Order: sequence, then structure tokens, then C-alpha cells
Amino acid sequence: MIKIALLGSTGSIGRQVISTVERHPDKFQIVSISANSSYKLFEEQMNKFKPKIACLTDGLSARKITSIPPETTLYTGENSMLHAVTEDADIVLAAVSGFAGLPAVVEAIKMGKNVALANKETLVAGGEMVMRLAKEKGVKIIPVDSEHSAIFQCLNFSTQTPFKKLILTASGGAFRNYTKQEIANFKASEALKHPNWQMGKKITIDCATLLNKGLEVIEACHLYNAPLEKVEAIVHPESIIHSMVEFEDGAVMAQLGFPSMEIPIQLALTYPERYPTGVPFLSLAGKTLNFKEIDEDKYPCFPLALKSFEMGYNFACAMNSANEEAVGLYLQDKIGFYDIPRLIQYALEKTEKLEVNLENLLYTDKFARALVREKLEKI
Amino acid sequence: MIKIALLGSTGSIGRQVISTVERHPDKFQIVSISANSSYKLFEEQMNKFKPKIACLTDGLSARKITSIPPETTLYTGENSMLHAVTEDADIVLAAVSGFAGLPAVVEAIKMGKNVALANKETLVAGGEMVMRLAKEKGVKIIPVDSEHSAIFQCLNFSTQTPFKKLILTASGGAFRNYTKQEIANFKASEALKHPNWQMGKKITIDCATLLNKGLEVIEACHLYNAPLEKVEAIVHPESIIHSMVEFEDGAVMAQLGFPSMEIPIQLALTYPERYPTGVPFLSLAGKTLNFKEIDEDKYPCFPLALKSFEMGYNFACAMNSANEEAVGLYLQDKIGFYDIPRLIQYALEKTEKLEVNLENLLYTDKFARALVREKLEKI
Repeated sequence: MIKIALLGSTGSIGRQVISTVERHPDKFQIVSISANSSYKLFEEQMNKFKPKIACLTDGLSARKITSIPPETTLYTGENSMLHAVTEDADIVLAAVSGFAGLPAVVEAIKMGKNVALANKETLVAGGEMVMRLAKEKGVKIIPVDSEHSAIFQCLNFSTQTPFKKLILTASGGAFRNYTKQEIANFKASEALKHPNWQMGKKITIDCATLLNKGLEVIEACHLYNAPLEKVEAIVHPESIIHSMVEFEDGAVMAQLGFPSMEIPIQLALTYPERYPTGVPFLSLAGKTLNFKEIDEDKYPCFPLALKSFEMGYNFACAMNSANEEAVGLYLQDKIGFYDIPRLIQYALEKTEKLEVNLENLLYTDKFARALVREKLEKI
Repeated sequence: MIKIALLGSTGSIGRQVISTVERHPDKFQIVSISANSSYKLFEEQMNKFKPKIACLTDGLSARKITSIPPETTLYTGENSMLHAVTEDADIVLAAVSGFAGLPAVVEAIKMGKNVALANKETLVAGGEMVMRLAKEKGVKIIPVDSEHSAIFQCLNFSTQTPFKKLILTASGGAFRNYTKQEIANFKASEALKHPNWQMGKKITIDCATLLNKGLEVIEACHLYNAPLEKVEAIVHPESIIHSMVEFEDGAVMAQLGFPSMEIPIQLALTYPERYPTGVPFLSLAGKTLNFKEIDEDKYPCFPLALKSFEMGYNFACAMNSANEEAVGLYLQDKIGFYDIPRLIQYALEKTEKLEVNLENLLYTDKFARALVREKLEKI
């Protein structure tokens, strides 16, 4: 029985973790959950799984909860998520969206818990610190993202397997068939129509800007201890190949499948063993797989993300936080599509270079968001 | 230093083994070679590598050899190949074309030598016997064929990894863009223009008839202890994905690469380690990969091969030998393209059911060839 602390239980990934647990109740047990404000679903989950600990960050939402099972202790408030990283858990599944997941992941590693990581921002912002800490504590950081899980599978579930190049695939997002001029005028509602994957809003916008692929390249560098030049991204509109690894001899291994997060989620918990999922099997007959290079002019967020990583220190953190803030504004139709990279660029220019530690990252996060809001006034 | 007994040193695979050895002289040593009749190249190889033992099957060709290095003992005659399976070798690389490789592979297994198998006919004709013997002797049968190597890589170099389905890819051969009526009139010279791979004549014809894919499905069943329903073949004209494995959870692993045998040859000798080859790296940008089902009406040899396997006993052996004979005739322009399946069908009908042992297989081989020649008179 694998005991899971599930951070972000009501989000897209969290709900799929829940359905994985429900599919194999003999294998998995949820010992704690945390969520932000979706109190109805949270209450349902709490009463269904009766976790020892449940945390709802948003205090106002927590007040609307009417029924708490006797087995469960409920925590609320901004830092309550840390309680969900409990001694009881075998693994912490970090499915919180955005920078907010970082402190809890750090806490989990400090407690010596293996982390199944669906929160890429943790590594983007604090990768160096997080990976160093994980090494010190002998803790495994197991990828849940479909691309990084694909790479993990291609490397036979070992971050030690030598490779020549990691090749991440990108669907190209909602706007892949439009020109730059057309894209410039699209509202968020258009960007949310992702062609292949069902995901949360923030990541779906990140797919449309391809900033998401930049985050993933950075995440891959940290997870697989690779310099930037050993990680590539390529557009593959069909999202059938989830990512690839090229080896020294010229062989390339790829992982393919129906686009569903349930495979990587379950595998992160059970690897190297594989068990049935509800995911349809792939049928390639009649299919065509296409590949093309990323158009950096059309998708300036992609090179911008990589540039922030090359700048080192806290710059990738600033890029990520500026993006989160800008995407929030785009989702509210307050800015245009290409204002997102403009705002990130501005934040990067104004960010003060700092060493990477949790305190500095928290500061950088707040400061980058403030920079975006400040710049917004001037747009 | 890995000591190699190379059976079939002058053929297409044999020459690529030689170039692999030449690329890594610190890793590989050739301790014996065997060939059939290409005495010039054979003599060159003998004088270059000075193997302890060298065997040329064809006595007439052997008489044309002028220089034998003092380190080497030369054997000639029909059964001389068996001498090349020497005690000295760490691994026997069986790159002989056709049924002729079977006795030497059996000999190698009996001597407890691991076998890198590029001779698929060995398993097609005697798979049950060969795999049982290998198990008894604790000997590894390592695939060299690009498809089976791809599967081996997808299973992380273990025949014990559980899987749901093996999916072999087929280029579709030289006639893939023609109708059945057009194909019917093509001569062997047309069939020899394989679009993706540089190979020997016999296998190139087998690619055009897709009988080769039938042989590979049978080989995969034996190598990976799979029933026929767990092995599929799919047409993939670009030959970029060399084969795939589908797992219980819906994930599919695939091995891709530039179409060259040097990767699987070298990997069979060094796995799980990988070293540089001379093979160009794959670049997917701008590429399109297509997949379609095999048209069994256009390629009757494919279902015919599978049927012979389902019939059990010595029938796959008869199918294989009848095909070798028929392909020989097609290469001499003595029969048409669709006479190949007709002759195989005839041989299968007339073959007497026998238990699988070496003696019976040798008999079945000779008898099936005789049946083909007999039927030819009547065409």
C-alpha cells in the first residue's frame, strides 16, 4: 500500500490522481490532501478518503465546509499546505499549480519524503536548491509531467543513464495554425481551446505561448542534470510522442501514448511496475506524426524562458512569477497575448540578481509580480 | 575485450560487424570468421584480423585463396562453419543468411556461447527447439535484427519485462506504392531497389513480399515468448521507428533512428552500454511519420508466414525453405512475384508434419525446396 500526500487535490492533476487511487484501492491510500479554494470538491474528497490531514489554503472557502470526518484534522490558512506533508506519507505528490508549490516541496524533501512532481515551477524557480537538497536527503524527485515522465521511461527510470540529448515534444498549443498577426489579437478564451490535452487554465495559456515548453526544458535540465545544450524542444502537433532521448550510438528512445496524464501519474507511483489505467490504447494505423522546429519569432516566450535560465541566480524564478502574473492578467482580458513576453522581459530587466535560497525566491516571486503590475499601468 | 566468432563475415551484416570492430578495436576482437564463397573479401579479412580459425564453406572458392596468415587455421567444406564456433569466443554473431545458419547456432548454444542473432531463419525454422536449448544451457539469444533490437531496447534489454503487445514496423518494401496488378509484373531487379535499407538480395526480396515481416513476427514470438496475438506488424514507410512495445498501462515505447544496422549490431555486443557509431543522428524536424495496416491481399506472403507458424511442428521451417528456394528462382527471373506465395502454399500443403528436431528440420528444408522445384515444372 503506497501512502500518498496529495498537494493540490482539486486541480486537474489532483483529480486524476484521485481517479488513479480509485482504480487501484488495493495499491494506494490517500493520507493527506491540500487544496486552495475549491471547497465543495475538497469536502467531497475529505469525506470519501478520510485522510488524517486535510488543508484548505483559502480561509474564506474553508468556512463554507460543513462536514469533516472524525478521522480528519482540517488546517486552513496560507501556510496550511505544509501540514499535508505528513510523516505518514510514503510519497508527496505535488500537484499544486505555480510557484505556491515550492515551499511544500522543500518541506517534503527536508522530511526525507520522495516527491512525485507535477509542479514544474518548483524546479524552474528553485531547481538548483531543490535538487541539491534532494541529493543530500537521498530523496527521489519523480517526474509526473508527461514529457519528463516520457524521458524517465526512455532512461529506464534512472536519472543516471547516460544520454546525448533530451528531446521534448510540444503540441504547439491552441494557436499553432495561425500567423503572428492573427495570434496577437486572440483573447484568452481562444487560447484555452487546447487541441490535445485537457488541463488547467494557466498551463493551457502557457502552452499557447510555448512558455510552458521553456519551463519544461529548464525542469529537464534540473531533473536530469543536463546543460541547456543537451535539451531540445520540437513541435509535434499530434502529441502522440510525449518526448524522446537520443543516445551516444545514434539510437533514439521515445514514449508514445494517448494524451492522458493518468499514465505518468500512476507510473510515478508504481514504476518500474505498470498496471492498467483507464487510458485508451494507441492505434497508429492511419495516423501521421509531424515534427517541426519552434518558430521563436512567433513564440518569444520560449527563448525568453531559456534566456532567464542561462542568466542563472533567481532569474528563472522571476521569469516564472512574472509569467504567472501576466497570464492571470491575460485570462482577465486585461492584456494582449504578446504583452505576456513584454511583461516578462520587463521583469527580467528589473530583477535584482540574488543567490537562490527559499527566502530570496519568495522575495523574487513577490517582486516580479509587482513589476508586472507596475508595468501594466504603462501599457 | 569481447571475443567474437563471426559467422557470415562477407555478407551485408558481416561487413557491418567488421566495421563495428574496426571502430572500437579496444573493445572487440574477431577470433574466428566463416563465409560461403566470397573468397577475396574473406582472404582480406583473414589477413587483417588473423583469426585463430577461418572457414569457407565453398571448396572451389577456397582453392583460390593464396595467402593464409600463420595464426590462422583454414577449414573448408559444407560443414566447416561449425569450426568457427570456437571455445575462444565470448559471443557468436550469427550473420549467415538463411536456413544454413541453424546448425551452427545450435552448436554455439550447446557450447554455452551467447548468440547475437542476425539470422532470423534459425528461430523461424527451429525457434521452439533453439529457445528451449538456450534456456537449458543458460545462453542468451540477443537480437541483431533492427526490429527485434528495437523491442529489446524498449524492454530495457530484458526478455522478462512484461508487455501487452509487440509492434513491428515494416517499410512496405520496394513495391509499396504500386497496385497488385502492377506488382505482379515486376522483375526482381525492381524489387531490389529497397527505399530505406541497404541489405542483401534475399532479404530485400523478402521485404518486397513482406514475407520478411512474417518471419520477424515469428522470430519475435520465440525471442519474447509471446503468442501470435501479442505481436503485430504495421507499415511505416519512413523506417524511422524501428519497432515498438505497448505496455499494460497504455504507454508505448519506441526505438527510432537513422536506418542503419550498425546501431543494433554494436548494441548486441555491448548492451546495456552504448558507444558512438558512425551512424548519423536523427533529425525529426520537417519529417512526417506515416502508419498504415498491412494489405494482406497485396502481400499474401505475410499471412501465409503467420499461418505456417500457427500450424506448428515443422511448417514454419517448410515455409521458410520454400520461400528461400522461390526467392532464388525469382532472382533468376524464372518465376513471377506472386508465384512466390503460390510455391510456398504448395510446399505447405505437401509438407509432412514432423516434430521439431535438427534432423527433421534438415529433412524438411531439403524436401520443401524439392517441392518448390517440382511445382515449378508445372507453372
